[in-house]
Amino acid sequence: MDPADSQLFVASSPRQRATKLVEAPKSIEARWLLRVLKAAGNPPIEFELGWSGERVTAEGTPLHCVRLINRGVWLGLLADFEVRFGDAYSQGEIDITGDLVGFMSTVFRAYEKVGGDGLLAGRMAGWLRRARPNTLRSSRDNIHRHYDLGNDFYALWLGETMAYTCAYFPTAEATLDQAQIAKMDLVCQKLRIGAGDSVVEAGCGWGGLARHIASKYGAKVRSFNISREQIDYARHRARQDGLERKIEFVEDDYRNIDGHYDVFVSVGMLEHVGRENYERLGRIIRGALNSRGRGLIHSIGRNRPEPLHPWIERRIFPGAYAPSLGEMMRIFEPVNLSVLDVENLRLHYALTLKQWLARFEASKDQIRELSFDEKFIRMWRLYLAGSIAAFETGAMQLFQVVFTPATNNRIPLTRSAKY
Amino acid sequence: MDPADSQLFVASSPRQRATKLVEAPKSIEARWLLRVLKAAGNPPIEFELGWSGERVTAEGTPLHCVRLINRGVWLGLLADFEVRFGDAYSQGEIDITGDLVGFMSTVFRAYEKVGGDGLLAGRMAGWLRRARPNTLRSSRDNIHRHYDLGNDFYALWLGETMAYTCAYFPTAEATLDQAQIAKMDLVCQKLRIGAGDSVVEAGCGWGGLARHIASKYGAKVRSFNISREQIDYARHRARQDGLERKIEFVEDDYRNIDGHYDVFVSVGMLEHVGRENYERLGRIIRGALNSRGRGLIHSIGRNRPEPLHPWIERRIFPGAYAPSLGEMMRIFEPVNLSVLDVENLRLHYALTLKQWLARFEASKDQIRELSFDEKFIRMWRLYLAGSIAAFETGAMQLFQVVFTPATNNRIPLTRSAKY
Repeated sequence: MDPADSQLFVASSPRQRATKLVEAPKSIEARWLLRVLKAAGNPPIEFELGWSGERVTAEGTPLHCVRLINRGVWLGLLADFEVRFGDAYSQGEIDITGDLVGFMSTVFRAYEKVGGDGLLAGRMAGWLRRARPNTLRSSRDNIHRHYDLGNDFYALWLGETMAYTCAYFPTAEATLDQAQIAKMDLVCQKLRIGAGDSVVEAGCGWGGLARHIASKYGAKVRSFNISREQIDYARHRARQDGLERKIEFVEDDYRNIDGHYDVFVSVGMLEHVGRENYERLGRIIRGALNSRGRGLIHSIGRNRPEPLHPWIERRIFPGAYAPSLGEMMRIFEPVNLSVLDVENLRLHYALTLKQWLARFEASKDQIRELSFDEKFIRMWRLYLAGSIAAFETGAMQLFQVVFTPATNNRIPLTRSAKY
Repeated sequence: MDPADSQLFVASSPRQRATKLVEAPKSIEARWLLRVLKAAGNPPIEFELGWSGERVTAEGTPLHCVRLINRGVWLGLLADFEVRFGDAYSQGEIDITGDLVGFMSTVFRAYEKVGGDGLLAGRMAGWLRRARPNTLRSSRDNIHRHYDLGNDFYALWLGETMAYTCAYFPTAEATLDQAQIAKMDLVCQKLRIGAGDSVVEAGCGWGGLARHIASKYGAKVRSFNISREQIDYARHRARQDGLERKIEFVEDDYRNIDGHYDVFVSVGMLEHVGRENYERLGRIIRGALNSRGRGLIHSIGRNRPEPLHPWIERRIFPGAYAPSLGEMMRIFEPVNLSVLDVENLRLHYALTLKQWLARFEASKDQIRELSFDEKFIRMWRLYLAGSIAAFETGAMQLFQVVFTPATNNRIPLTRSAKY
């Protein structure tokens, strides 16, 4: 059994022993790790060097212990801390005792405290070096690497709706499926979708929103996606539900959207568009909307321009970027789309991810049966736990932006009808 | 009697006579005006040259007639169309028959249709040349020129609340006073203001929101304003209402805000801050908010960066600028303030301005008694009518932006409680 498993959901228990401050760490490894802690504002984290038993901690009582199994891990951290930390955790060469989400929250809070312009600039430079393009072809590769891991895998923990985006919890007690349906209703109500509307969707995942729009709101939907596995699944489910005449699933890039529609909707695709394509996306949206049109983009975002964590961008979401609201405006401003409404749902994403992680942990045996190895499981655990922490500590945001062509006056006077 | 008065609220009546297209205008003035119309996409406007009787119109039946009284007006338009048009109207040297708001809407729609990058760039260049600074001293001058016209003047048409910002109409039938109170409640509810909260207000007008926060929500308010006349009025009204221990009115610039507060609120001041001061405003807000703090900025805005109309900036609001949402983000992003909610209330501003214009027109005799001349009345009529058209045609926006420090998790999960 994975040593971290049993403690994953245990509340972090501060060690009761007195602080054992390593006044002058003996080894070069220990001295370097102490410098890392100090530079991070002395978070309550202890490093344990597996090969010597040496322990390194900053001031105060540590809440989390990070155990480096061998000296090779330390050399890796020295070379590229952020990427190698995640890799070593995935490979079982780093163990984190206590609550993993709590540990990640401690890390995010430390970053927030010391995260000044200098640090930001440094990370930005690193990220620009790494930036992956999102051409028509590389987008397919990037999407394939994450979304084509197998529908069976995602079905184990995404719930009935197969929605792999932030849900909307009318109350914190809602189930995952209830919250995903509530999110679809929120989106449809913000867009005032009704029977007779034509909807174009950019990035449709496994087609859950398209089916919801067609079956509950009676609109016609044309959904674009470049993930082959998702499109196959979406078409199958639409046929099962007798919706094949209401929905057309197009296996193609959003850049090839044609025609005119009443509604443009995109939930969880913008993260994969790349900042270099925002103006183009804006022209595509403006061209797709008729004069009474309205649109909604739902995307992970940031409070300020900042790269994704390099480990996440490299191992989990190649080519992905979460924009600030200011950056998102590059989609709308050049083509005179008028922003009507923005809602930040970051706490909903923390709730969603908690449900995903719990289901993921409960499905480990089935995941192994699908031939995924321990490294994959630990990698995904770190990604999900880290994401919970990121949304809970305010490091990441989730923006829903509603917009219309500038001259569209068929807009509701107040939000009251929606709530 | 002013010749435009009687027709101001009459629906525009297209002339029934057949289109009399001036195939080849004889005079140089007429030929130039025809070129202006063509460049504007042939809006249904007719020019009449008062000194020759010549009429110039583009294709189709004109809806509006613009009469130039003398050749000097034409020379002025030739030199600086946008500023001189407003000035000539104010001086009675231009008459516009038919509905003034409808005429202005036609102008805005024409601009929207042809408003490409080239035209925009041209106007931008003109505006940069004109830009007025907003230093501590010049801000006082700029504010004094508009807001110190006399409380008696504003009291004639702003209604009971003396609120000179966009109201919020729960229904389009609400009265002006009801809608202004509803706006204050909307702001307080978005900010979750309660008894025991400390509030700092940047730009308090005549103090209506501060009084509402103190009397209805029980919070303590510290309100900054550099308009002497407004501060005097605000203090007087607070004493009348027995609120002098709950509200402190500070006659000072927002840049001198000190202390820490639960809430930052600013309704209708950002337009006077100037883009060059947004980062500084952000630092002031971040410094003023405690970790549980939340803030709201309510401001006129644009869909994309664009100068105010030069006549408005020169004659009505010196130094003013209405930012795009992307530009507003320069306030929040550098200091890691997290945007929670944006609402665009542009149609509410059209409704508000209609009520103001109707009251303004009904108060003309009293305005004259306050020693304002006909030129002033026509200037303000053009400003109010043009503003209605700008918000109705989507040329201008009104953004309410709610934000918190990034790590504040005491935020409501949904909007439901507010509606």
